[in-house]
Amino acid sequence: MTRTARAYTNIALIKYWGKKNKQLKLPYTNSLSLTLDRFYTDTKASIVDSDQDIIYLNQQLLDDAHSKRIRNYLDIVRQFYSFSEHFQIDSVNHVPTSAGFASSASGFAALAAAVNETKQLNLNRRELSILARNGSGSASRSIYGGFVEWIAGNDNASSFAQPIDEHPDIDLSILSVVIDTQNKKISSTVGMENSVKSSPFYPNWVTLVTSEIEEIKQAIAKKDIQKIGEISEHNAMSMHALTLSANPSFTYFAPETIRIIQIIQELRQKGIFAYATIDAGPNVKIICTKESLPKVQTYIEQQLSNVTTVVANIGSGIEYI
Amino acid sequence: MTRTARAYTNIALIKYWGKKNKQLKLPYTNSLSLTLDRFYTDTKASIVDSDQDIIYLNQQLLDDAHSKRIRNYLDIVRQFYSFSEHFQIDSVNHVPTSAGFASSASGFAALAAAVNETKQLNLNRRELSILARNGSGSASRSIYGGFVEWIAGNDNASSFAQPIDEHPDIDLSILSVVIDTQNKKISSTVGMENSVKSSPFYPNWVTLVTSEIEEIKQAIAKKDIQKIGEISEHNAMSMHALTLSANPSFTYFAPETIRIIQIIQELRQKGIFAYATIDAGPNVKIICTKESLPKVQTYIEQQLSNVTTVVANIGSGIEYI
Repeated sequence: MTRTARAYTNIALIKYWGKKNKQLKLPYTNSLSLTLDRFYTDTKASIVDSDQDIIYLNQQLLDDAHSKRIRNYLDIVRQFYSFSEHFQIDSVNHVPTSAGFASSASGFAALAAAVNETKQLNLNRRELSILARNGSGSASRSIYGGFVEWIAGNDNASSFAQPIDEHPDIDLSILSVVIDTQNKKISSTVGMENSVKSSPFYPNWVTLVTSEIEEIKQAIAKKDIQKIGEISEHNAMSMHALTLSANPSFTYFAPETIRIIQIIQELRQKGIFAYATIDAGPNVKIICTKESLPKVQTYIEQQLSNVTTVVANIGSGIEYI
Repeated sequence: MTRTARAYTNIALIKYWGKKNKQLKLPYTNSLSLTLDRFYTDTKASIVDSDQDIIYLNQQLLDDAHSKRIRNYLDIVRQFYSFSEHFQIDSVNHVPTSAGFASSASGFAALAAAVNETKQLNLNRRELSILARNGSGSASRSIYGGFVEWIAGNDNASSFAQPIDEHPDIDLSILSVVIDTQNKKISSTVGMENSVKSSPFYPNWVTLVTSEIEEIKQAIAKKDIQKIGEISEHNAMSMHALTLSANPSFTYFAPETIRIIQIIQELRQKGIFAYATIDAGPNVKIICTKESLPKVQTYIEQQLSNVTTVVANIGSGIEYI
């Protein structure tokens, strides 16, 4: 009986922004994330007697164009582990677009684990993280639960995630604020490339991340949630400073993004715990405590009409079900 | 008959952001501006038989609190030029708040020139620029018309503006888009201090400005308006990247600022000449050509209800009337 692999999405508190090797998805810097509990992908891989992979996403057969990235990835997996079988992939995404999270992290982590299961590759979690990274950089982190660090490394074997604290006893929840916007989307891949290539500040970003990774690991060890919030917010805003200073300048911010940043500052002035982190899009993820979250949620929903909010807590690593 | 001094405001295309000497207002970098024609300050200084300065702004007598900065400045002027007389200052600001420009540049340039006139100090324009700088850094540039560079310098005598092209035959106009917002204002002085102190990107800002000053001077010499627009927009956005990456992060952007940036990108995609520059506030100044300006103005006014737009052209240096 082949089991289904389940992987959860994660949110980077120290961002991954810039690839030093595009093909291997090797980043310029380490990054650090929190795995979430609500948003996950379930994936099953079944060997088929075919010379082509067949990909179902949410019970829909994907056409060639939409399955290309996944099929290319499966080619890489076959090459790595020297086998030739093709698969039927059945993948169900429980990461709704409306929740404002990317599904590629949970998607490629679940896919790597599903193939590992079906082909009985017996990969350990480090090997699984390396394999997932080859699909999507941030997928390397979704192998583990809780706080996870992705070590940049220098080649395929040395670039993998490792757990910092998989089941942290810490009072942090994430409120995702999804903005209903028609912004033309700049993919994170293109955004990273433009930032690396043309932001005069990129070299200092590398230095910054190195020190903020150390600082946040100390804060995690001490369960200093305020420090975790402060470092995360500064790191995210510095990433967005790279897009503003790219040449030509660009931004992922929508008008409502600025309004939410203002609201978070207002909330903090009232003594309510709330820190912002923002990925390659207009949505804001707010780092809250159990106590502050409902207050933040109510306030945001009162102030803004065209947003949806979703709550997530700390989640675990790869599971087989 | 004592003449009234008139000084125009200016808009920095390469921004002044960060003081290396607070008292002398010495900047970390050179900056480069365009003097505008519509917004100016008229100032007359009359010697009074009093041991206190009397300050009228827009025909209103200023109380001690509101006149402190001007009186402190006049103390500096007296000390520099070793005289003891006090003045009645009659200053009229034709830089309405609703136009979105700071009045300190034209204000201190006109005040320096008015005292020079009344006390017959016979300062040349370089000396006048140094004197104006001691009131407000950007005032050093309002001594000249057209394109002006403020040389950072290392001490009081070496930090002054000089003309690049006082009467440029170039097709550039400025559309100021003023946003009706209740944002709590972070002064440029405080914003600069926080950026210098805490943005990990500040050292690279200094390098960036040095190269962008050279590039824009070449573009001005060639009347390459597209290049002027591109460099100006990149420089402004990089300045705002410094605020985002300050620790704690802050921004001068309002939600509408982002909307206007998006509109400018939409306009450029339609082939309409428009580049953004933004100072220490939410308003956007759009660099246009004579041809593009009415189109940009119409489009902005259609898209946004809570803004005021004001047109300015290239203006001249200090005048006496």
